[in-house]
Amino acid sequence: MRMYDLIQEKKEGRVLSKEEISYMIQNYTNGTIPDYQMAAMLMAICFQGMTQEETLDLTLAMRDSGDTLDLSEIPGIKVDKHSTGGVGDKTSLVLSPILAELGVPVAKMSGRGLGHTGGTIDKLECFPGLSTSLGEKQFLENVRTVGMAIAGQTANLAPADKKLYALRDVTATVAQPSLIAASIMSKKLASGSDAIVLDVKTGNGAFMQKYEDAVQLAQTMVSIGRGAGKTTYAAITNMSQPLGRAVGNTLEVLEAIQALQGDGPEDLLEVVYTLGSLMLRAAGKTCDAKEARAMMEQVIASGRAVDRFAKFVEAQGGDGRQVLHPETLAVAEIKKPVYAKTGCMGYVKEIQALDIGTACMKLGGGRLTKEAAIDLSVGIVLEKKVGDQICAQDEPIAYVYANDRERCDEACLAVQNAFTVTDQPVEKPRCVYGCIVD
Amino acid sequence: MRMYDLIQEKKEGRVLSKEEISYMIQNYTNGTIPDYQMAAMLMAICFQGMTQEETLDLTLAMRDSGDTLDLSEIPGIKVDKHSTGGVGDKTSLVLSPILAELGVPVAKMSGRGLGHTGGTIDKLECFPGLSTSLGEKQFLENVRTVGMAIAGQTANLAPADKKLYALRDVTATVAQPSLIAASIMSKKLASGSDAIVLDVKTGNGAFMQKYEDAVQLAQTMVSIGRGAGKTTYAAITNMSQPLGRAVGNTLEVLEAIQALQGDGPEDLLEVVYTLGSLMLRAAGKTCDAKEARAMMEQVIASGRAVDRFAKFVEAQGGDGRQVLHPETLAVAEIKKPVYAKTGCMGYVKEIQALDIGTACMKLGGGRLTKEAAIDLSVGIVLEKKVGDQICAQDEPIAYVYANDRERCDEACLAVQNAFTVTDQPVEKPRCVYGCIVD
Repeated sequence: MRMYDLIQEKKEGRVLSKEEISYMIQNYTNGTIPDYQMAAMLMAICFQGMTQEETLDLTLAMRDSGDTLDLSEIPGIKVDKHSTGGVGDKTSLVLSPILAELGVPVAKMSGRGLGHTGGTIDKLECFPGLSTSLGEKQFLENVRTVGMAIAGQTANLAPADKKLYALRDVTATVAQPSLIAASIMSKKLASGSDAIVLDVKTGNGAFMQKYEDAVQLAQTMVSIGRGAGKTTYAAITNMSQPLGRAVGNTLEVLEAIQALQGDGPEDLLEVVYTLGSLMLRAAGKTCDAKEARAMMEQVIASGRAVDRFAKFVEAQGGDGRQVLHPETLAVAEIKKPVYAKTGCMGYVKEIQALDIGTACMKLGGGRLTKEAAIDLSVGIVLEKKVGDQICAQDEPIAYVYANDRERCDEACLAVQNAFTVTDQPVEKPRCVYGCIVD
Repeated sequence: MRMYDLIQEKKEGRVLSKEEISYMIQNYTNGTIPDYQMAAMLMAICFQGMTQEETLDLTLAMRDSGDTLDLSEIPGIKVDKHSTGGVGDKTSLVLSPILAELGVPVAKMSGRGLGHTGGTIDKLECFPGLSTSLGEKQFLENVRTVGMAIAGQTANLAPADKKLYALRDVTATVAQPSLIAASIMSKKLASGSDAIVLDVKTGNGAFMQKYEDAVQLAQTMVSIGRGAGKTTYAAITNMSQPLGRAVGNTLEVLEAIQALQGDGPEDLLEVVYTLGSLMLRAAGKTCDAKEARAMMEQVIASGRAVDRFAKFVEAQGGDGRQVLHPETLAVAEIKKPVYAKTGCMGYVKEIQALDIGTACMKLGGGRLTKEAAIDLSVGIVLEKKVGDQICAQDEPIAYVYANDRERCDEACLAVQNAFTVTDQPVEKPRCVYGCIVD
């Protein structure tokens, strides 16, 4: 078999066999196939696409390129949740303790933020002492004893994906549905859970800006998951405005704690309950979404959810008391209100999630490159969301949290510009567009 | 400017500007842009194509990536001739001395053979002592004094092409019309002649197997040449059977000498006269094809053409007397006749040029990789060509010249299989399909 022939085949629109795909991934991972041949292949795939079967074969080959985690020692059905990434998305922080409390073990490998989207690992580091660098043994032990653990990827999971993603990133071949799906799913399949629930976000702050693309990606990933023998569900959710009110690492943790205390913003809770229902369904707890929601509400109302979160923080080296006293978490020194543009009173029509995410990144709260350091304490809290009314010129639409006066002013301007205001009443947008269940 | 953005642009079907193309070629040649990014770009070009203007810009950027030869010291209009390559194509050997004798200086940079096609440089090396490694000074001096010189590429002409071709060769991106045209024309433009005559071959022994593709390539190259300010003509010629009768380095030189002596095969002479007429037209000697032909016939008949060839051989270090006594050139020891398949009498319908070229290569007369050594003395001489009648079973259709019994037998079988014989009379195929003149 020669990579040259495989490139030629794909270029001419022929379907690659399981053996060919496996040969390609194995030899690319071990360095036998050079980057330039893979780059040509990736571009050919962008034009010719991949069939459902090819996409599954690619995902499995990528999964098998490294280690796979064995969660079988943990009793119960392990459900993994994955979001395609967005602005203000603190869903995992809220969902995990709720699920753990409901007897669904959460063994979560998570990532750091990049560009305008945040990452769960970064957010958790606002607890001084908390470590997400858990060894495999400690990780499994925590899941068993606390019901949940969240760690950065330590094992050599799907190294083919890491190498392929780096190449796609510099060859303009990222935005291909099969390649995106295989990238996400190969890691999910390697991390050993029994079922997978996907949160595919759409809107200008999401990776998939168009609704149709998000649906296609969701369908492709569900088909891969099921093809690999895992129960797989997906929700398509709205990322045209930030989720919840807080954007920025510590600020988002504070909002997650509020949500766990029963005081979360409506849209965040809607997404939490939707994904939670799918997870409870996958875990065999209940197929009734209403019942699932009631179970989750009850766990929050009883205070058990926030207690569980405190235990989790404690178990990973943080001070659990900070969860119950969140005012002890450090936020930025400067807090400056943002007002709507002069004469712009009325109703919020749009809040460009991408612009809010970018403003947070520029405050120091996100990273442009993988190596950059970030300031966890900065960010933005929205006082108004789409559909809300602005009644007076001196009513803040948001607050910017910053540690630098100049950056603060820039962010205020960016946040102001991210808002579109109209004099006609605006309906609250849907948070969840739909789900792919059975 | 970032290569990433250029890849993305081309991927989305947008047209690249002169500046963008120039940036890309310059930085690829100097190593700033890595192979993998260029590989992705090349594949995107295969799918999106390039406009005529982009193709010209690409060619000029490639021309300017290295040295350009200055032929201005040589008086007269210098006309370069280029063939896209074929089997048994010894046209340059016949044309050059004729043109030189008619006052058109020939300063030819030529290549070695690869795969099933031969190269002029290899062929000339059948004269012991002859060197094609001329320094620039010696090369120009020979053109001035002898009227012709043929050398391997010594100067650093179009290094971008060398690098790009090597990459295309391993990424299945060779067969793209703009890339092919730019590759050929960048070298031609860098080699400094005033006018260019192109021989674009079509048929199964040619690079462009389909007639339409050959016409498109010819048109593209002519448009590039003219866009660069050079008089450019092209002929589309037949390469569905080998040109002339001899295939193999020394055997082809022998046939070229015969042609210069007035005893060449009809199809070879037809191509020689067609290209020669275009060259004489480009050189301002005559626009009348009949007159041009008469001039060339006269040069052959008078013996001046073969004498000029002898002087050329002498000037490049060979023994000119061998041209007048070609029986002194070494051919292979074994000469074995090939007969048509049993019961196959009648008329030759087809002779697969590709198969004859491949048979010659397997005899040792060609190279599969650039580094391989070749045996100049082996080859095939066709006794029958398309349209010829085979009257008896014991009438040879070809002779194989070999230095190894086993390889000889294999070649005999391959040559036999390359022939298709029919019982119906077959018309002699056209040698020249047409020309692109003014």
